[in-house]
Amino acid sequence: MKYLNLDRTDAYGKLKEEYSSGKERLSLPDLLSAERIRSCSIAAGGGLTYNYAAKEVNEKVLRLLSDLAAETECIEKYRALAGGERMNTGEDRRVLHHLTRGELAGPVTEKDRDLGAFYREQQKRIADFSRRLRAGEITGSTGKSFSTVVQIGIGGSDLGPRALYLALKNWCRTELKSPLLEARFISNVDPDDAEEVLSSLDFERTLFILVSKSGTTQETLTNRALVAGMMRSAGIPGLDPERHFVAVTSETSPLAGAPGFLDSFFIDDYIGGRYSSTSAVGGVVLSLAFGPEIFERLLAGAHQADKAAMEGDVRRNAALMDALIGVWERNICGYPVSAILPYSQGLHRFPAHLQQLDMESNGKQVNREGSAVAYSTGPVIFGEPGTNGQHSFYQLLHQGTDIVPLQFIGFVKSQTGYDTEYENSTSQQKLKANLTAQIVAFAAGKKNSNLNKNFPGGRPSSLIYGEQLNPEALGALLAHFENKVMFQGFIWNINSFDQEGVQLGKILTSQVLGAAEKRGDLLDTYARLLKL
Amino acid sequence: MKYLNLDRTDAYGKLKEEYSSGKERLSLPDLLSAERIRSCSIAAGGGLTYNYAAKEVNEKVLRLLSDLAAETECIEKYRALAGGERMNTGEDRRVLHHLTRGELAGPVTEKDRDLGAFYREQQKRIADFSRRLRAGEITGSTGKSFSTVVQIGIGGSDLGPRALYLALKNWCRTELKSPLLEARFISNVDPDDAEEVLSSLDFERTLFILVSKSGTTQETLTNRALVAGMMRSAGIPGLDPERHFVAVTSETSPLAGAPGFLDSFFIDDYIGGRYSSTSAVGGVVLSLAFGPEIFERLLAGAHQADKAAMEGDVRRNAALMDALIGVWERNICGYPVSAILPYSQGLHRFPAHLQQLDMESNGKQVNREGSAVAYSTGPVIFGEPGTNGQHSFYQLLHQGTDIVPLQFIGFVKSQTGYDTEYENSTSQQKLKANLTAQIVAFAAGKKNSNLNKNFPGGRPSSLIYGEQLNPEALGALLAHFENKVMFQGFIWNINSFDQEGVQLGKILTSQVLGAAEKRGDLLDTYARLLKL
Repeated sequence: MKYLNLDRTDAYGKLKEEYSSGKERLSLPDLLSAERIRSCSIAAGGGLTYNYAAKEVNEKVLRLLSDLAAETECIEKYRALAGGERMNTGEDRRVLHHLTRGELAGPVTEKDRDLGAFYREQQKRIADFSRRLRAGEITGSTGKSFSTVVQIGIGGSDLGPRALYLALKNWCRTELKSPLLEARFISNVDPDDAEEVLSSLDFERTLFILVSKSGTTQETLTNRALVAGMMRSAGIPGLDPERHFVAVTSETSPLAGAPGFLDSFFIDDYIGGRYSSTSAVGGVVLSLAFGPEIFERLLAGAHQADKAAMEGDVRRNAALMDALIGVWERNICGYPVSAILPYSQGLHRFPAHLQQLDMESNGKQVNREGSAVAYSTGPVIFGEPGTNGQHSFYQLLHQGTDIVPLQFIGFVKSQTGYDTEYENSTSQQKLKANLTAQIVAFAAGKKNSNLNKNFPGGRPSSLIYGEQLNPEALGALLAHFENKVMFQGFIWNINSFDQEGVQLGKILTSQVLGAAEKRGDLLDTYARLLKL
Repeated sequence: MKYLNLDRTDAYGKLKEEYSSGKERLSLPDLLSAERIRSCSIAAGGGLTYNYAAKEVNEKVLRLLSDLAAETECIEKYRALAGGERMNTGEDRRVLHHLTRGELAGPVTEKDRDLGAFYREQQKRIADFSRRLRAGEITGSTGKSFSTVVQIGIGGSDLGPRALYLALKNWCRTELKSPLLEARFISNVDPDDAEEVLSSLDFERTLFILVSKSGTTQETLTNRALVAGMMRSAGIPGLDPERHFVAVTSETSPLAGAPGFLDSFFIDDYIGGRYSSTSAVGGVVLSLAFGPEIFERLLAGAHQADKAAMEGDVRRNAALMDALIGVWERNICGYPVSAILPYSQGLHRFPAHLQQLDMESNGKQVNREGSAVAYSTGPVIFGEPGTNGQHSFYQLLHQGTDIVPLQFIGFVKSQTGYDTEYENSTSQQKLKANLTAQIVAFAAGKKNSNLNKNFPGGRPSSLIYGEQLNPEALGALLAHFENKVMFQGFIWNINSFDQEGVQLGKILTSQVLGAAEKRGDLLDTYARLLKL
């Protein structure tokens, strides 16, 4: 395979030329039409459809983007990655999160070990454990059944699983007959985070899930100690913290096989933290809370999206099209930020997960061989649910001096089905009407001679939509963005799978916490401001 | 007073010149020193201190920024605004949120009415109502005392009050002897939002606070209908929804004096939604949840910050300095985004409030007279608490291709006081050590010949810190940012107090919900995708 920096590709030069010479052919208000809305749809798996009608890309640009995908060998690299090639070059690791939901390119073996079988085996162990615990066969140390699970983890061990839990809990509560366990999350080293969660728990009926791939995450180990200490000081006769903890870690970590856990479930170095929601990192908490069948449906949706992303024709590959248009907007149009706007309250923490996924993967300035790149890479990602955002930051999106490309997400039906009619429409109809109105308002704008009331339009968006936010749709949504980010990493020729940017902070934190003479002047002076 | 566009000021030209000619004098790693950290501190009210040592501004730039403040008459305009001048030019309204926490420039009267006395009277009515309700003298329709309050509002009626509630609830739980009422929030028109909150409520013991200044907010009125419908269908004998609702609105709105409310509390057109947290909009829910004394302490902190922002010397005015450095970064350095990073879990939704405050206020492209401006205005604002963000998007902040200016917030003590020692330091010490480490890592960086492990540094940040996140500190923090945003609006010569950018969406939403033939092709085609 060829690994070219973006600015060495033929397509990049042609795209820049098309942008500078063809601006008048690229007016979004002119481009957008009913016919275009009908034709710019791509199935994305899990019942989802990606629609890019309101993106500022004409036929010529789409052809060049297709050339760019071919020239950067996006599909070939994806196939190689799925087949087990060591695409995480900085850490010399495979990248196998796809394999947690199914094989895409046959089995991946290492020293005669089938890695897909390993992930499946863990999932089976999780499913068995979950069924027994949910049936009351596994109880707490005082003999009571568990009603709450608390995930202790940070970053990828927190944001993805938490966003997925919040996205499905109301659907599950409405749809399922079997009872749900409540899930809570402790992530921050700020002791107020743990204290708030712990202050309302019934320890006898709570299972803690300690999640750290390396087994050395400072925040997570500190919170384990804090939780165990609070349990011991609760003075509950017979309460044994060790029988209220399970671990999710790698087999080579200091936590693996360590005493103090009821059971342990494993991942390996080929599952990056921000890509770990479909591994045991998300699997334990979601299987315990909702039952393993729900988690398996989520995996099936993700696998569908993964398969859809293998399609070679860009116009039939939603994740690849999304990635290419993102590169167009970032590198050719020069837009540094993108917003995620789900019109579904269940997705209220999904943008925070995508923020990590995208910014930690592609916020890099060196290519996969370690040389500096001369172009922009990952954008800043932020977002809040609509319609809330309409009453908040949309002002800037509509009338600010910068253009921010938008990613709308919406569903035909609500999750819980509860609704009311008010002034001739239901809440769900109002929600969808607002979504529809916003896409058109951003794209087409509205002229007004009073410039304060003028809407310039030309603000591009895409829409991912489906029938309902159910486990399959959520799995596909998750995988769609993982694959988009992966494709963009290929196009930028960067390694989307390491995160060296977190290291310096760790070193300096140790210096601050160590002997004062090692802090150095700057650390020491700031530390003194904070009375440290 | 003079109203000059930024690019017509002398200081702007000189700042641009200094930037282009003086780049080598502006290296942040060279600028930052222990002495600078000690000297670049400004008291901000409420026990808070603003420190700008790690901002990329040298003495020359600071002098020019001070000139810019003088030339744009920031303090004079603030004084005029506080004195009641109609600074919201687009809507021809006064801007009086400061007056909800105290007089800064004497009384403000309109047709012989003292507007400060009006706000105080409302606050007194809220305090009385809260005391009686919290004492069990005001009960629900079935005679039970209230244990939960639910705010129904969106945008400014949701984000600020919610962020403040979350920021204080653990402090109050720990510090106060009087019991807290739990507060919940319903904002989105998505029926899943209301359903989730309602599904866990005891209606007999719940008071709903309907908040809409105009009394016409679609989401809020729809949610009122949805809540009332669910209460009626709950089949609880004697339950009367009308005795479980209070209103917060303006005296001229259709809700004022309408039947169906236990009581009503008022604001007026001079309190913008995103500036309304210290009016009845935040006052009712916070006084009910925590007791009116806590809300009054928050007001006192905000008033201190307001007074501190009147200081004419830029180097002793935290909000003005913050505003000026932000303009330097936005318009001279060209940074389009800024991140808010509170090292305090209680502030986990505070960035969402600041996102609205800043982006809705200053995301404008016309000046206060309605002419287009030729420079950038408000940046994109986003943020999450540390240390969580360190395991997420900080990768891009450290090593991405763009520079994102940072606003750190931290406190000496945690809110709840619960802590544990693990590996020779407490959680709170670890939290502060991480904060210290990040400021220095971003500013100074760390050279490495392996570019993948290289930290370029030069990434500017400021730090607001205090002893503890208590009501006074929180009030001051809120007011600091309100005043910063106000000053930036003065410097950009825009009206920070209207929000015309929300109007087009409302019109198009009505079209979608109306007769299909009025939708037009684009709206209709998108609506059909969503089966609307």
